[in-house]
Formats: sequence, structure tokens, C-alpha cells
Amino acid sequence: MAGPDRVALKHGAGGRAMRALIEDVFLPLGGPVDGVGLSAMDDGAALRVGDQWLVVTTDSHVVQPIFFPGGDIGRISVCGTVNDLAMMGATEPLGLTCAVVIEEGFPREALERIRDSMKRACEEAGVTIVTGDTKVMGKGEVDGIVLNTAGFALARRIVRDDGLRPGDRIIVTGTVGDHGMAVMTRRRDLQIEGDLRSDVAPLNGLVRAALQAGGEAVVAMKDPTRGGLASVLHEFAQKAKVGVVLDGPSVPVTHEVQAAAEMLGIDPLVVANEGKAVLGVRPEAVDRVLAALRAHPQGRRAAVVGTAVAERPGNVILDTGLGRRLLAESDGEPLPRIC
Amino acid sequence: MAGPDRVALKHGAGGRAMRALIEDVFLPLGGPVDGVGLSAMDDGAALRVGDQWLVVTTDSHVVQPIFFPGGDIGRISVCGTVNDLAMMGATEPLGLTCAVVIEEGFPREALERIRDSMKRACEEAGVTIVTGDTKVMGKGEVDGIVLNTAGFALARRIVRDDGLRPGDRIIVTGTVGDHGMAVMTRRRDLQIEGDLRSDVAPLNGLVRAALQAGGEAVVAMKDPTRGGLASVLHEFAQKAKVGVVLDGPSVPVTHEVQAAAEMLGIDPLVVANEGKAVLGVRPEAVDRVLAALRAHPQGRRAAVVGTAVAERPGNVILDTGLGRRLLAESDGEPLPRIC
Ligand SMILES: Nc1ncnc2c1ncn2[C@@H]1O[C@H](COP(=O)(O)OP(=O)(O)OP(=O)(O)O)[C@@H](O)[C@H]1O
Ligand SMILES: Nc1ncnc2c1ncn2[C@@H]1O[C@H](COP(=O)(O)OP(=O)(O)OP(=O)(O)O)[C@@H](O)[C@H]1O
Ligand SMILES: [Mg+2]
Ligand SMILES: [Mg+2]
Ligand SMILES: [Mg+2]
Ligand SMILES: [Mg+2]
Ligand SMILES: [Mg+2]
Ligand SMILES: [Mg+2]
Repeated sequence: MAGPDRVALKHGAGGRAMRALIEDVFLPLGGPVDGVGLSAMDDGAALRVGDQWLVVTTDSHVVQPIFFPGGDIGRISVCGTVNDLAMMGATEPLGLTCAVVIEEGFPREALERIRDSMKRACEEAGVTIVTGDTKVMGKGEVDGIVLNTAGFALARRIVRDDGLRPGDRIIVTGTVGDHGMAVMTRRRDLQIEGDLRSDVAPLNGLVRAALQAGGEAVVAMKDPTRGGLASVLHEFAQKAKVGVVLDGPSVPVTHEVQAAAEMLGIDPLVVANEGKAVLGVRPEAVDRVLAALRAHPQGRRAAVVGTAVAERPGNVILDTGLGRRLLAESDGEPLPRIC
Repeated sequence: MAGPDRVALKHGAGGRAMRALIEDVFLPLGGPVDGVGLSAMDDGAALRVGDQWLVVTTDSHVVQPIFFPGGDIGRISVCGTVNDLAMMGATEPLGLTCAVVIEEGFPREALERIRDSMKRACEEAGVTIVTGDTKVMGKGEVDGIVLNTAGFALARRIVRDDGLRPGDRIIVTGTVGDHGMAVMTRRRDLQIEGDLRSDVAPLNGLVRAALQAGGEAVVAMKDPTRGGLASVLHEFAQKAKVGVVLDGPSVPVTHEVQAAAEMLGIDPLVVANEGKAVLGVRPEAVDRVLAALRAHPQGRRAAVVGTAVAERPGNVILDTGLGRRLLAESDGEPLPRIC
């Protein structure tokens, strides 16, 4: 089964292996566009339409278990797509599509719970589903349900992910690792003290507040989903050809995530989030963006966690407080089907 | 496994059971939109953007086998979405999304063949992929590959599927049943004389020609995918509250499809097509629309196959040449995973 001529689990895990597969296999499907197309490998595409941008994005979801502490596959499907639009600067989604692939024998009651959860997330984000598709595969041909959404929005201004220059600061909008740790501990049935739950939430309201405060000084945005904060910082660094110094002690992490990280032996920096954003901000605007984020219920634990530097372009340097070392990007997250 | 509280194969088969499931479970996800939203259950959505329409659609594909005579899952994924845009009147696609869910161990060579096939279909349709997503599920968790595309386009005018009134004529752009029969015979390894292959192709060029010829006189369009021509005619009839008389002998069917139909005991009228359109046209424009279709390489076998009538609203009456009877809509196609 293994070998370079076969697709492996790591090819879906959000790290280097996945990016290499996408670049080798799928990038040839792109073509020149007036705006941000496939080759940019950003959170979505952006095409010029008159004096606006049409922003489009898509994600499939295969999370297992389907229901987990803090959310379910329906909530992720809506939030993930709303968030990728927001990461492009498009905070007013026009609509989402909803395509389900269901296993024969799947309980209708579970389908309805998923639907209800999607509905609630849509209401939070201020969007509706406008079209969809339903396919059924035979028993044993798909594990439960696979859910795809695509989203589209118009925006006056977009934010890409390659805008950092030395001196810019990196803000994360809250604690990291919550989603991935909640799914992993549930899957392995680990007992963690306290309330370990996914952060899955639509971020368009929070991002709107940050963009109102920061304007053009917000120069890069990405949501740290598969691959976690570490992956986002590597992408920021590689695309802008800067180094990024990550100030380890300032990264917000809950006690519960810390405990789970120790039990599982997994660094929260490489674990998926579904309700956080990472922003690159010009130094003069950092205070007002941080204040705007902290004034929003979803951004109370926002923090400045790093700085772009001219040295070590393409790399992430972790400052642990005791010393500095290169932070490796994970080749593939330790567990598959995290979202 | 069975029972009304579980999803069954027929819920993915494009007939009445599927429509009932979608109406019960998914319609509540919609909301009021300025244009054509979820409640219209049309080939896609259409939202007002300035003086134009933004048309959006999505389909997932689970066809089995992945490669079949005349096409493969990649070609279907591009063509299906281009065609649903075209069926809304949007013949100039702006872009497509491409989301793949791959089984661990899937051969990269097959992935590349699928990619090449998507690329070719994109070129035929004049569109590119602008963004995508890649997930991997474990061995045995999904059967090979599931592919979703969403598509979007701007259009000055849209065509819905509820525009028929008594006296309008129904045109089908070519032979029916080719795709479904090609997949079914391949799956069952039946030997049919001649060349039985899927018709899967992008129809935006053909539809552009029909709309140029017919203008506002083209009042309904749909592609007869799952559920076949019978399903489309039932939807036309129900949505417009007219009866539709189908002139059986005038429906184009190849010898190969006829032979397969007899071996399998399946009526070509309920079998999926992936390269055909059904148009409702005002009587005064029928000749020019038909001439425009026949002048196009994809429309040489276009034919007028029916007429909307005031009697029997919501029903389809099959005129066999010997007599008339109600044509039943299939509750679910005989075989799953046809597209
Ligand atoms: N199958 C594919 N075809 C075309 N482009 C793809 C495909 N898979 C991924 N991409 C592109 O690769 C880039 C990375 O995709 P990825 O899914 O990691 O981004 P994301 O949606 O922001 O993250 P996540 O899926 O973890 O939420 C994006 O620009 C995406 O458009
Ligand atoms: N899961 C879903 N959520 C929301 N709407 C859905 C869903 N499934 C289907 N729909 C809607 O139901 C209608 C019928 O869908 P269907 O997939 O049959 O159309 P189609 O794409 O034209 O046909 P096919 O999928 O056979 O190509 C469409 O309006 C579609 O938007
Ligand atoms: Mg993203
Ligand atoms: Mg995403
Ligand atoms: Mg569909
Ligand atoms: Mg259709
Ligand atoms: Mg379709
Ligand atoms: Mg993605």
C-alpha cells in the first residue's frame, strides 16, 4: 500500500507532504486569472468583478468522530468555508453550497442533527445555503458522511498571505490546539480534566472588526487548520521570503490542551484549529488591531506571538524563552481525519 | 439497515425518494435570496449582483467504476458542473473549485489520469480550476475517490426550470441513456455490439448557440442526469403546473443503448445522461432553436420530443405511437453510483 506511487494519510494532513502532492498533481489545473488563482495556494481564489473581488473557496470534511466535544461535521463545514472567505478579507459571505455523500444505512436522525448544526452556524455567520447535492454510496463504501461546502463573497479589498515584511508582527486571535486536541482525545477516549472542546466557530465577525481597525496594515491572514500554527507561519515565511520568529511563551494555550499535548506527545503548535486566525500586521497598527480583537468575544485571548525578520527567509525560528531553534513544519499531522 | 429512519441507496438516485429527502432534511438550510435560492430546487442558484446574475452550482461525484467507456470521474466532475451552470443560462463559467477525498493507497498514476481528464474537459469548456481541497481517508474508509466541484459564472439573463406553458415544445439535444448504460454495462461486464460509451461532455457551447437562436423563447432548461429524461419532464411539469406529452418514438436512442436496455430491462428514459440538455421552447422559436442545435457538433441528433399541455398538470403522458399512458417517474435508479 505504501510507497511514493500511492497516496498516504500524510497527503491529507496539511503539512509539507500534502502541499507537495497538490503542487505536483493539481496545480496544472489552474490557469491565468485576473486576481488570485490556484497557483497562489491561498485560502481561496479572488477574481476581479467590476471594482470588486469575487472570492471563492471550498473544503471537504471527513472528521471522525462526526460528533465531538464542541461541534460536529456540519458546524465545521460551514465555519471552515466562512473562515477561508474571511481569511481572504471577504467577511460578508453571499452564500454557501452544501454537498453531502452519505453511506447507505446512515441514520436520518444524525443527518438532521448535522443539518441543525449547519443551520445554527449559518445563522452565526449571517449566511445561507443556496444550492447543494446529495449522493449515497453503498454500505461500507464510505465511512458515514463526507460533507463539502463551497463559499462565495464579494469584497472591496482582499488580504493575501504573502504580505509580510521584516518588522511586521504576528497576531493569533486566541488559544491554539483546541480543535485537534478535542477530536484526538475523544477518538482515543482519553480523560482530560476540565473542558476540552473544539473552538469551531465562524470568524467573519471577528475578522471584520480587525480589518476595520487595521485597514491596509493587515497584510497577511490565514486560519491555522490542518498543520496548525506552525504550518501557517511556514507558509507566511516562505511566501513572503522572510524569517518568522515565534515567541513560544506568548502563544496562548489552555491548561486542557497542554494536558492533552503531554498525554499524546503532540505539540499544540502543529494541531488543527477551527476558530482561530493568524494575522500579519504592520507594526504601527498592532495595538489597534489587538485592541479590536480583544474587544470581540471571540478574540479575548488574542496575542502578539511573533515578528517577521530579514534573516532566515522561509524559516520559522522558535524562541522558547531559553534559546532559539528552527521550528520544523510537520510532514503530516499525527492523526488523520481531524477535520 | 433499511427502514424509513435510515438513508437508502434510492436517496441518491435522482428520483422521487431523493427529492423527498432533500426537501425534508436540507431545504431548511435555505433562506430568502434576491434571485433563485435553495427552495427553487433548480440546477443551481442565481443571485443578483448589480445588473447581472451570479450563478453557482455544485455536484459531488462517486461514479463506479472510476474509469468507464467514454470518460471518468474527473471528466464528469468538470462537465457536470459546467452543465448545471449552462442549464441556468450561464454559458461562460468564471471558474471551478476542485475538492478531492482520496482513499489511502490510491495510485498516484490514477490520480494523474483523473487530473489530465479534468484538464482536458476544462479546456473544452473554457474554464480553469481556481481553488480546491485535498483530504485523505484511511484504507477501507472510502472507495477510491470522491470528487466535488462547484462552479460560478456571471450571466445577463438566466433560464429557470419552471417556465413552461401549454403549447411550448420540449427539445432534447441528442440521444438519451448513453452515460448510464455505458457505466452499467461496464460494471456488470456485459458485452454489447458496437460502441456504447458515455456522452459526458461540457454543453456550454451548445447551449450558448441555442440561447443565441432562441433568446427569451427558451423558457426552461435542465440536464437529464440521475433520473434521466423522465425525471426532467416530471420536474418541468410539476414546477410549471402543466402536463407534458412525450412523443416516445421521437426520442433519439442509439442501437447500442437500445440493446443494453433490453438486456438490463431498464428503460432508457430513466437512465442518466451527462452530455444532453432538455429545453422548453415557445412554439414560434422551435425551428430556429432546433436548427441552431443541429448545426452544432454536439446537437446533430437534437429532436422535438414533446409538448406542454393544460391537461394533467404535474404529469407526464407517454405517447407510444400506439396509445397514451402516464409515465411513472422512477423512485430511484436501478443502480447506484452512476455519476
Ligand atoms: N485538489 C485540489 N485541487 C486544486 N487545488 C487544491 C486542491 N487541494 C488543495 N488545493 C489548494 O491548495 C491550497 C492549500 O489547500 P488547503 O486545503 O490546505 O487550504 P485551507 O482550506 O485553507 O486549509 P484546510 O483545508 O485545512 O481548512 C489552497 O490554495 C487550495 O486551493
Ligand atoms: N444536500 C443538499 N443541500 C442543499 N440542497 C441540495 C442538497 N442536495 C440537493 N440539493 C438541491 O436539490 C436540487 C436537486 O439536486 P440535484 O443534485 O438532483 O440536481 P442536479 O445537480 O441538477 O442533478 P445531478 O446531481 O444528478 O447532476 C438542487 O436544487 C440542489 O441544489
Ligand atoms: Mg485556510
Ligand atoms: Mg480551509
Ligand atoms: Mg447535483
Ligand atoms: Mg442539473
Ligand atoms: Mg448536476
Ligand atoms: Mg482546504
